[in-house]
Amino acid sequence: MASLGTLYVVSAPSGAGKSSLIKAYLADHGDNASVSVSHTTRAPRPGEENGVHYHFVNHAEFEKLIAQDAFFEWAEVFGNYYGTSKAAIQQQLEQGLDVFLDIDWQGARQVKKLQPNAKTIFIAPPSQAELLSRLQKRGQDSDEVIAKRMQEAQSEISHYDEFDFIVVNDDFAQALADLTAILRAQRCTQQKQAKKHQALFSDLLA
Amino acid sequence: MASLGTLYVVSAPSGAGKSSLIKAYLADHGDNASVSVSHTTRAPRPGEENGVHYHFVNHAEFEKLIAQDAFFEWAEVFGNYYGTSKAAIQQQLEQGLDVFLDIDWQGARQVKKLQPNAKTIFIAPPSQAELLSRLQKRGQDSDEVIAKRMQEAQSEISHYDEFDFIVVNDDFAQALADLTAILRAQRCTQQKQAKKHQALFSDLLA
Repeated sequence: MASLGTLYVVSAPSGAGKSSLIKAYLADHGDNASVSVSHTTRAPRPGEENGVHYHFVNHAEFEKLIAQDAFFEWAEVFGNYYGTSKAAIQQQLEQGLDVFLDIDWQGARQVKKLQPNAKTIFIAPPSQAELLSRLQKRGQDSDEVIAKRMQEAQSEISHYDEFDFIVVNDDFAQALADLTAILRAQRCTQQKQAKKHQALFSDLLA
Repeated sequence: MASLGTLYVVSAPSGAGKSSLIKAYLADHGDNASVSVSHTTRAPRPGEENGVHYHFVNHAEFEKLIAQDAFFEWAEVFGNYYGTSKAAIQQQLEQGLDVFLDIDWQGARQVKKLQPNAKTIFIAPPSQAELLSRLQKRGQDSDEVIAKRMQEAQSEISHYDEFDFIVVNDDFAQALADLTAILRAQRCTQQKQAKKHQALFSDLLA
């Protein structure tokens, strides 16, 4: 039988506000939702904690986990590995937690193949102009770097039609309400409710 | 392409609070949702208006509509016909309205067969004791009538696992929030958003 928790893959181009939305959601619903902590071989950045931001492992350890088929999805980016451990997520789901996976469309595809019950959510910016403006506001990036980010963003956005849900982050409060509704509605699906309320339906049909 | 609106079949045993929930939802969301008005051959009761509570027609008219395949679903109950016209609902859905169909599990099955995009919602009472108490509070019904209602309720409840969503109406505000989330989340599905935001995605990918 399905677990009470649901696995959510949330993808977005950078600048869409995905991290802020997930953070705001968890601030209100931290008791029944969490973000999956990925494994990586890259070095911790200042302030990053092992087990909180990532599980930091070396290449040999990561490759051993790959060989053990321990990952939902993994990828090599600029010479470093990133991956999502099945065991950790499964445990959270069975505790009834919803789990967010913050990965790109390629990871979303892999996860959906392995776990068809997972729900995929795409966060979209409200316009190209606004996306550009958000990327420009981030700081001291050169025009060249920003142009490259816009290109990467478009590549990510081109897969928007592969997702189960789309949240357009124009007004932040509305986008958060959309995200919240998606997770609440999922908890009302027949499979989840039948499991949660087994005793109730036994009583009603007695 | 799918319409922006969604057809919701809402079923429940009497005493579950279905009508109150739909009424409360529409009080807040009357601009983008409505209840389908059924056709019937039974006589109007005091206070019932033609076109508001039902479309009142005679047997010959109803049978003509059946022959024209004009109904999503219809049934004969105690010698009277009840039916849901396809044309009226389709028009509302294409205007972007969500439409509630207040029918039983048999109607739900028929509608789902004809319109697989329809979503079915079952409203459940929080316990058998509470259901009995709600039926008893309704007024001057004899024990025999109440026992019959409980039997009918159990028969309806036995089909709870055929529905897409289940809302347990224990705390009314929470049940209303569940219902509201289900409808809001449905508006965030990829198909609905891709249609609603066609111009946005053209802009983002330009």
